[in-house]
Amino acid sequence: MSMPKDSGKNAAAESPAVAESKIQPAKGKLGVMTVGMGSVATTLIAGVEAVRKGLAKPIGSLTQMGTIRLGKRTDARTPLIKDFVPLADLHDVVFTGWEIFPENMYEAAEHAAVLDRDHLKSIKPFLEAIKPMPAVFDQHYVKRLNGTHVKQGKSKCDLAQQLRSDIQAFKSQVDRVVVLWAGSTEIFLEPSAVHQSIEAFEKGLVDNDPNIAPSQIYAYAALKEGVPFANGAPNLTVDLPCMQELSKLTGAPICGKDFKTGQTFMKTVLAPAFKARMLGVAGWYSTNILGNRDGEVLDDPESFKTKEESKLGVLDFILQPELYPDLYKDIYHKVRINYYPPRGDNKEGWDNIDIFGWLGYPMQIKVDFLCRDSILAAPIALDLVLFLDLAQRSSELKHLGIQEWLSFYFKSPMTAEGLYPEHDLFIQSMKLKNTLRHIMGEDLITHLGLEYYD
Amino acid sequence: MSMPKDSGKNAAAESPAVAESKIQPAKGKLGVMTVGMGSVATTLIAGVEAVRKGLAKPIGSLTQMGTIRLGKRTDARTPLIKDFVPLADLHDVVFTGWEIFPENMYEAAEHAAVLDRDHLKSIKPFLEAIKPMPAVFDQHYVKRLNGTHVKQGKSKCDLAQQLRSDIQAFKSQVDRVVVLWAGSTEIFLEPSAVHQSIEAFEKGLVDNDPNIAPSQIYAYAALKEGVPFANGAPNLTVDLPCMQELSKLTGAPICGKDFKTGQTFMKTVLAPAFKARMLGVAGWYSTNILGNRDGEVLDDPESFKTKEESKLGVLDFILQPELYPDLYKDIYHKVRINYYPPRGDNKEGWDNIDIFGWLGYPMQIKVDFLCRDSILAAPIALDLVLFLDLAQRSSELKHLGIQEWLSFYFKSPMTAEGLYPEHDLFIQSMKLKNTLRHIMGEDLITHLGLEYYD
Amino acid sequence: MSMPKDSGKNAAAESPAVAESKIQPAKGKLGVMTVGMGSVATTLIAGVEAVRKGLAKPIGSLTQMGTIRLGKRTDARTPLIKDFVPLADLHDVVFTGWEIFPENMYEAAEHAAVLDRDHLKSIKPFLEAIKPMPAVFDQHYVKRLNGTHVKQGKSKCDLAQQLRSDIQAFKSQVDRVVVLWAGSTEIFLEPSAVHQSIEAFEKGLVDNDPNIAPSQIYAYAALKEGVPFANGAPNLTVDLPCMQELSKLTGAPICGKDFKTGQTFMKTVLAPAFKARMLGVAGWYSTNILGNRDGEVLDDPESFKTKEESKLGVLDFILQPELYPDLYKDIYHKVRINYYPPRGDNKEGWDNIDIFGWLGYPMQIKVDFLCRDSILAAPIALDLVLFLDLAQRSSELKHLGIQEWLSFYFKSPMTAEGLYPEHDLFIQSMKLKNTLRHIMGEDLITHLGLEYYD
Amino acid sequence: MSMPKDSGKNAAAESPAVAESKIQPAKGKLGVMTVGMGSVATTLIAGVEAVRKGLAKPIGSLTQMGTIRLGKRTDARTPLIKDFVPLADLHDVVFTGWEIFPENMYEAAEHAAVLDRDHLKSIKPFLEAIKPMPAVFDQHYVKRLNGTHVKQGKSKCDLAQQLRSDIQAFKSQVDRVVVLWAGSTEIFLEPSAVHQSIEAFEKGLVDNDPNIAPSQIYAYAALKEGVPFANGAPNLTVDLPCMQELSKLTGAPICGKDFKTGQTFMKTVLAPAFKARMLGVAGWYSTNILGNRDGEVLDDPESFKTKEESKLGVLDFILQPELYPDLYKDIYHKVRINYYPPRGDNKEGWDNIDIFGWLGYPMQIKVDFLCRDSILAAPIALDLVLFLDLAQRSSELKHLGIQEWLSFYFKSPMTAEGLYPEHDLFIQSMKLKNTLRHIMGEDLITHLGLEYYD
Repeated sequence: MSMPKDSGKNAAAESPAVAESKIQPAKGKLGVMTVGMGSVATTLIAGVEAVRKGLAKPIGSLTQMGTIRLGKRTDARTPLIKDFVPLADLHDVVFTGWEIFPENMYEAAEHAAVLDRDHLKSIKPFLEAIKPMPAVFDQHYVKRLNGTHVKQGKSKCDLAQQLRSDIQAFKSQVDRVVVLWAGSTEIFLEPSAVHQSIEAFEKGLVDNDPNIAPSQIYAYAALKEGVPFANGAPNLTVDLPCMQELSKLTGAPICGKDFKTGQTFMKTVLAPAFKARMLGVAGWYSTNILGNRDGEVLDDPESFKTKEESKLGVLDFILQPELYPDLYKDIYHKVRINYYPPRGDNKEGWDNIDIFGWLGYPMQIKVDFLCRDSILAAPIALDLVLFLDLAQRSSELKHLGIQEWLSFYFKSPMTAEGLYPEHDLFIQSMKLKNTLRHIMGEDLITHLGLEYYD
Repeated sequence: MSMPKDSGKNAAAESPAVAESKIQPAKGKLGVMTVGMGSVATTLIAGVEAVRKGLAKPIGSLTQMGTIRLGKRTDARTPLIKDFVPLADLHDVVFTGWEIFPENMYEAAEHAAVLDRDHLKSIKPFLEAIKPMPAVFDQHYVKRLNGTHVKQGKSKCDLAQQLRSDIQAFKSQVDRVVVLWAGSTEIFLEPSAVHQSIEAFEKGLVDNDPNIAPSQIYAYAALKEGVPFANGAPNLTVDLPCMQELSKLTGAPICGKDFKTGQTFMKTVLAPAFKARMLGVAGWYSTNILGNRDGEVLDDPESFKTKEESKLGVLDFILQPELYPDLYKDIYHKVRINYYPPRGDNKEGWDNIDIFGWLGYPMQIKVDFLCRDSILAAPIALDLVLFLDLAQRSSELKHLGIQEWLSFYFKSPMTAEGLYPEHDLFIQSMKLKNTLRHIMGEDLITHLGLEYYD
Repeated sequence: MSMPKDSGKNAAAESPAVAESKIQPAKGKLGVMTVGMGSVATTLIAGVEAVRKGLAKPIGSLTQMGTIRLGKRTDARTPLIKDFVPLADLHDVVFTGWEIFPENMYEAAEHAAVLDRDHLKSIKPFLEAIKPMPAVFDQHYVKRLNGTHVKQGKSKCDLAQQLRSDIQAFKSQVDRVVVLWAGSTEIFLEPSAVHQSIEAFEKGLVDNDPNIAPSQIYAYAALKEGVPFANGAPNLTVDLPCMQELSKLTGAPICGKDFKTGQTFMKTVLAPAFKARMLGVAGWYSTNILGNRDGEVLDDPESFKTKEESKLGVLDFILQPELYPDLYKDIYHKVRINYYPPRGDNKEGWDNIDIFGWLGYPMQIKVDFLCRDSILAAPIALDLVLFLDLAQRSSELKHLGIQEWLSFYFKSPMTAEGLYPEHDLFIQSMKLKNTLRHIMGEDLITHLGLEYYD
Repeated sequence: MSMPKDSGKNAAAESPAVAESKIQPAKGKLGVMTVGMGSVATTLIAGVEAVRKGLAKPIGSLTQMGTIRLGKRTDARTPLIKDFVPLADLHDVVFTGWEIFPENMYEAAEHAAVLDRDHLKSIKPFLEAIKPMPAVFDQHYVKRLNGTHVKQGKSKCDLAQQLRSDIQAFKSQVDRVVVLWAGSTEIFLEPSAVHQSIEAFEKGLVDNDPNIAPSQIYAYAALKEGVPFANGAPNLTVDLPCMQELSKLTGAPICGKDFKTGQTFMKTVLAPAFKARMLGVAGWYSTNILGNRDGEVLDDPESFKTKEESKLGVLDFILQPELYPDLYKDIYHKVRINYYPPRGDNKEGWDNIDIFGWLGYPMQIKVDFLCRDSILAAPIALDLVLFLDLAQRSSELKHLGIQEWLSFYFKSPMTAEGLYPEHDLFIQSMKLKNTLRHIMGEDLITHLGLEYYD
C-alpha cells in the first residue's frame, strides 16, 4: 500500500496533454486597455517596455518571475509559471486606454514621478506614442479631480456606446483584449435596483440613473464586447448581479476589487499568522501617509469611505471572531489615510498591532512599510491581464464569471454569492497555484507528505 | 460530472470510524517531564493550572483554542481540534522535571518574573509542591551558567542510567510520559562518529565522549524508555542518526528543534509573503534585545553560534535563491542578539528588511516586535507534548521517528534525510492540519474550490 | 584683565542674602485645588503621598529631583533646586478639588488605571479620604462627557461665587492656595468682547455670556481670591486680557497652557535640534493613539480643534520659516489624535519627520513614543503648583501676571502681548533656571567659558 | 531701575567696532586640505561648487544658512552669521588633499555614490581637475583598507616632512590654509610617553614610534606649519599634550573629535531633554547599519573600539549619574555598528530608549533615523574649516589651542585639562553663538527676559 502523499491526485485525473488541449494557445497580440492612465498605468506600460528591452526585470510579477512546484518535494519539478501555462508573451502585449488628461504616456509618467528619469528617457519614443482616448468622467463621482479630456454624450447609454466603439476599434488591431480599471476611487455607492439584471442596467443607462457610476459604464462596455474586466479600485463596478450575469453570458471573466498592495497586503499576511498561532488581537491601528493623486482623491471623505470599507473588512474574514470570540471579538480596528505631499508616490503605512498570548499577556507589533504605491501595483496589473486572458482561453474558467482564484491580488476579493471570501494571502496563493495545476492536469499540493517517512 | 473541489479525497480513503480506531484513546494521566524548569517551564506549568482553575485562557495554544475546517467552505464544519482528535485533557496532565537550581516552581516563577504576582499567588500551593529533580549538567556546554542542583555520576552512561530511573519512577505514577527540553542553549556542536549509531552512542556514553552533550543524554534516556522527546532549544540533540534510529525502534516520536517564537516566527511569515508576490530581498537585518537568562547564556559566543545557525537558515530555505537568483541570491542577512537587562523576559526584535519591486525599485519594511519570550513559548510547549503523545498513540505516526508535521513549532524543523525542511509558517500549518485530517480519515484541503462556481 | 566667563554677572548684582530676603519663606501648609480629579490629579495626589511615605521617587519633577549649576563649571556647585530656592515641602502640601463624578480619590485612581493596584493599596485610606467638591460643568463645552456631580446656579456669576466660597473655605484650613486646571479639553473658543476687561467679564458672568466657558469661571474665582492659577489644558482660560489684568491686580501669578507631555515635548526637543544644525524640514506627520477619557473627549471634533491649535503652533515658532524660507517655509505639518481603547492611559505617539540636508538630500526620522499620559503630566502639575507658590512669595515675580519662565511646562506658553513665545525646550529650561538664579542673586549662565583656556 | 534682561552685558564691554578690529578680515583665498578624499570630502567639495554655481543650497551649514539673534527678542536683529562675523566667502575656498587611492574627485564621488549622477555631471570638469596627493598610510592602523597611492619614507619624520612640503606648496598658492581629517577610523590607541611633549613626539617621529599613527603625523605637519587642524574621526590625533602645546605655540587652532552626525547627534538632543525633565533612563540600545567604506572599516573590532569609546561617553557626561543616581546610575548603554552593504552611504540608526517617570513607571522611545552619512558630515566639515580660519584671525581665539566653542560639531569634544566636556547639543549651540557674540562685542544671551513684563 502506498503512503499518503503531500500532493493529492487531481479529481479530474486527465493527462496533462488532454488538459492543455482545453486551453486555447496565446496566439497573436493581446491588447490591454487601462481605464486611467496615471501612475499605475504608466508604471505598468513603461515597465513592460523596459523589460522587453532587457533594461529591467519584472520583479513582483508572478506570471513573469514565479515558479510552480509540481509533484513531490523530491521531484525537483519547478518550472516557471509562464513555461507551465500558455500565457501571452510580453512581446505580444499592446497598450492603450482612456484618461481625463490628454498627456501622452511619457508626459504622464514624468508627472507621476514614480520612475527615474533615466528609466523613462531610455524608452521615451515608445511612451510618447501612446496617447489616451478621452474618458467617461463625472466629477460627481470623484470630487477632487477635474478632467479636461472627457467624452460628451447625450446619456450614459450613449457614453457606453462610445466606449464600445473604442474597444471595437482596438479589437480590430489585436487578437484579444482585456480591460483593466486603474483609475481613481469613486464615492461610496451601494447596489440598487438598477444593478439587479442586465435589462435593468441597460434601462438605467438610457435613463441616466445616478446609481450608475462611470466605472460601471466601462465594465458594461467591456463585458458586452466579450472582453474580460479587472477592477483595481474599491469601486462598486463588477460586484453587481448584472455584471456577473453578463460576464457568464459573454464568457468574459471578471475579477476584483482593489489592488492589494501595501498595508492591506501586510495585514493579510500577519493576521493569518496570528490566527495560525492562536494569538489574540486587541487592537489594530493602521495609518497611511501618501502624497500622490490617489492620496488627494482619498482626502475626500466620500472617496475615503469607499476605500475604508474595502480595507476594514479584511480582519473579520481572516480572524473569524464568531469562531474565536476569546481571541478576536473585541478587536478595535482603525484605518486612517492621510494626504501628505512630501512623499509623492512613496506611501508609508504604519501599523500598530496589540496582540495577546498565553493567559492573556499583551504584546505589541509595529510595522512600518516604506513602500511605493505604483511599483507594487504595476506587476499586479500585469498578472491580472495575463491571467484573465488565460482564463478566457480556458474552457474550465471562461464561463465561471468571477475568477475567485485571482483573490490573491485584491483587498476585497469577489466570490460567488453566499460564499465568504478568502483574504489570507497564503490560502489565496495556494488557491491560485492549485487552480493552475488543476487546469493543467497536475496533482494538487496538500503538504501532507507522510510518504517521505515510510 | 462533479466539479473539482477545494478539498481533495483522502488517498487512504478509509471511513473516519476506521481511521479513528487506529488511534489509541487518551486514557489516564499524561506525565510531562521538562528538562530545565526555568521561565518557559514555569510559565507552562503555572499557565496550565490557571487554565484548569478557570483563571485564564490558554491563548496561543492550537490544541486548546484552535479549530479545523472539515469539508467544503459552505459546510460550516469547524470543530475545535481538541474535539476532533483524541488529545489528553489538561486535567490529566501531571508535571515534573529536572533543573540545576533547587527552587520549587513558585520560587522559580517569581524569579523568572514572567507572570504577575497576582497570577502566581492564586496557585501558590500547587506550584510550591512541584520541585525539580537534580539535573545532568556540565558547564563546558553552557558557559554562563553554574548550577548547584546536579547529579553526580561516574560516567555519562551512569548519568543516563540515573535519568532513566527518574523516568521509570515517574512512569509508575502516570499512564504515559513525554519529555521536553526547555533548558538553555548549549555550545555549538556538530555530528561526529559517536552519533552514527545506537551502538556507537552507547559506547560513547561509557567512554565519556566529549561530543555527547547533556541534552543528548536526556534524549537517549527518554527514547530508550520509549518516551517521546521534543527539543525546544537549538542544541544538537535528536537530529542525529542514533536518536532517529532509536526513536523508530522504540516507537517514541521525536521533534525539534528550537521553539519558533518571536523574530523567527515573524520571519517565516514575512519571507513567504515576499516570495508569494515575487518581491526581491536585498537585505535583512534582525536585532534582538532581551534580558532574561536566555539572553545571558547567548551572550557567550559559543552558545550564540548555536542559536545563530538555527536562525540564519530560515531565509535560504524559504526564499530558494537557487530558483530565484534575480530576487534572492544576494541577500545580506544578519542576525544579532544583545543581552539587555532592562527588559527581563520582555524581548524586543527589530527587523529591517530591504526589499525591491517592479524594475528593481527599493522599498523598506521595519518590524518591531515587543514580545514576551516565555509567553510565546509556553503554549508551543503545551501543544508539542500533547501532539507527541497523540503521535505515539497513532498507528500511522508512532513509528515514523521524526514528526515533520510539527515543523510549525520550530526554527529548525527536522526532516527525513535528503528532504529540505519547510520553514514557511503557512505550509507548516497546512501540513499540520492536513495530517490531522488524514489520520482522522477526512478529506485534505487544497483550496481549489472551483465547484462553487458551477 | 579677567577673561570672559561662561556665567555672566547678574545685572541686579545684589548679594544672595539680600535677594533671598525678597522671597517670603514657605511656611505652613500649601493647599492645592485641582479642577478635575481624574487620571492626572489622582496620579499626582497618590504619587505625592507615595513619595512622602518613601514608597517611590518623584521622578520627572524638577522641583524635587533637579539640581542647578551655580558659578563656573569647575566650581562644582550644583545644589538641588529645592535646597536652593524656598519651595513648599511635600509634607506641607494638602489636596482637594472639584470633579463632575463623585468618586473619592481611591475609586477615581482605580478607574483611571494608571497606577498599579499594589501602589494604590498601600495608600488606600489616604486616597479614600479625599472627595471632590461638585464641579461647575456644562456639556455644551465638553460634548463627550456627562457629569452628575455638578453645581447648580442661577447664573455663571452665581457659580463663580460658589467656587469662591469653596476656595475661601479651603484657605481657612491652609496657609496658601494654588488652583490647577487638570480637567478636560473644552470646545474651541476665541477671545471676544466679554474678555477685554475685568468689568466686561463680570458683566458677562451675570449675563451668562456663552463665550464664558467653565474653565474661565474657575480662573476668575481663583484670581479674585488672590490665588495663582495654572492651566493644564488647551482651553481659552487665562490667556485673556481680563484674566491678566486680574492676575497683576491681585498678585496672583498665572501660567499656561496645556501640559507639554508626550509628542509635543518631543517636538520641541527635535525641532530645535534641526534648526541648530540648519537641517530643513519638508514634512512632519504626528499621530497619536490613546484610550483614556482624554482620548474620548478629543474624539469630538470641537474639542480636537482646541487641542490641534495648541499642538500645531509649535513648529512655526521654533523653526521661524520667515527667517529660514529655504529650510522651513513649505513644511507640511499634520497632527492626528485617535481614540484607541486598547491602550487606556498608555498613549503612543508616532512621528514621521521628513528632513533634508546638504544640497537638499532627503532623510527621515521616525519616533515612536510609548508613553503614559498621566505619568508624564503629574510631575509637571506638581512643579507648577510649587513654582507658582514660589512666584507669589517672590517680590520680583508676584505682580508680573504671566510667568513666562514656566513656559518649559506648556504646549502653548503664555507671553506678554507682542512677544513671541519660546517653544524650544532648551531655551525654556535655561529661562527657568536663569530666573531662579536671578531671583536668588546668582550669576546667570551663558556657556561662554573662554576663561578656562586663559 | 531697569529690569533684568534676557541678554546680559558682555563682560568685555567693548564697542562692536573695537571688537571687530581685533579680527583680521577674510581676504584672499582659503585653502582647504582634506586628509582622505572619499565620501565626505567629495560631498563637501562637489557641494561647495554646486552652491557656488547656484545649483543647490548649503543646507545643514550654520555658517552659510544660520542667523544669530542680537539684543532683545523684540529688537528683531537676526543677521546671517556670515554677515555678522567675517568668514571666508565660499568663492574664495580652494580644495586639495591626500588620499590612498588615486582617483580624481569625479571618480571618487561616483564611487562614493552619495550624490546623484545629475548633480555630479553638472560640475564634472571642476571635480576632475582635483586630484589627491599620495597619502601617508599604514595598514597596521586601518586593517580593512589597502591603499595604493601612498607616500614612501625612511621614517615617520621623513613622512611628516613630505606632508609639510605639500602644505608649503599649497600655501604658496593661497592666502590661508586649514587641514581637516576626513579619513578612516584608526585602531584604538592611548596616549603614551611619546605624546607628552613636542620634543618627545619629534623624537618618536625619528624613531618610528608605533604609538604615532598616521593621523598624528598629519596633525603635527599642519600645526608645525601654523595651519589649523580639525579632526573628523575618533582617532587619537590632537587630543594629546604635544599637539595642544604646538597649537598654542604656533597659533594654529585645533578642534575635534569625530563629526557628530546621525545617531550621536540625536543622542545629544534626547538625553538633555530627559535630563531637563528629570526622566530616568534604564537602558539605551543603539544599533546602526551602514554600507559604506566607513562601515567596512568599523567591521574591524580594533577600529570599532575607537568609535565605540567615542560614542559611549556621551551619555555619562550629559546625564551626570553621580549627581542623579536615582535617575541614571544604572543605565545599560549598548552601541552596535553593523556593516550592511545594501544601504551604501545611507546609514540607519535605530535607538531604543527605556525611560521611566513619576514613581518609576517605565516608558519607551524608539527612534529610527534614516540618514545619509556624508550628507550630514559635509556641512559640518565646511563650518569647521571656516570657523577655524576665523579663530586663527581672531586675537582672542588664535592662541587658545583647543576651540571648545566648536564642541557643537563633535562626538567627543576636546576641552582644557580637568574640564568636563559639554555634550548637550543646546549648550554647545549656545556656547558657539555666545562666543561669536562675545568676539563681536555683542551682549550675551541668557534667556532671562523679565524686562518684558515690567
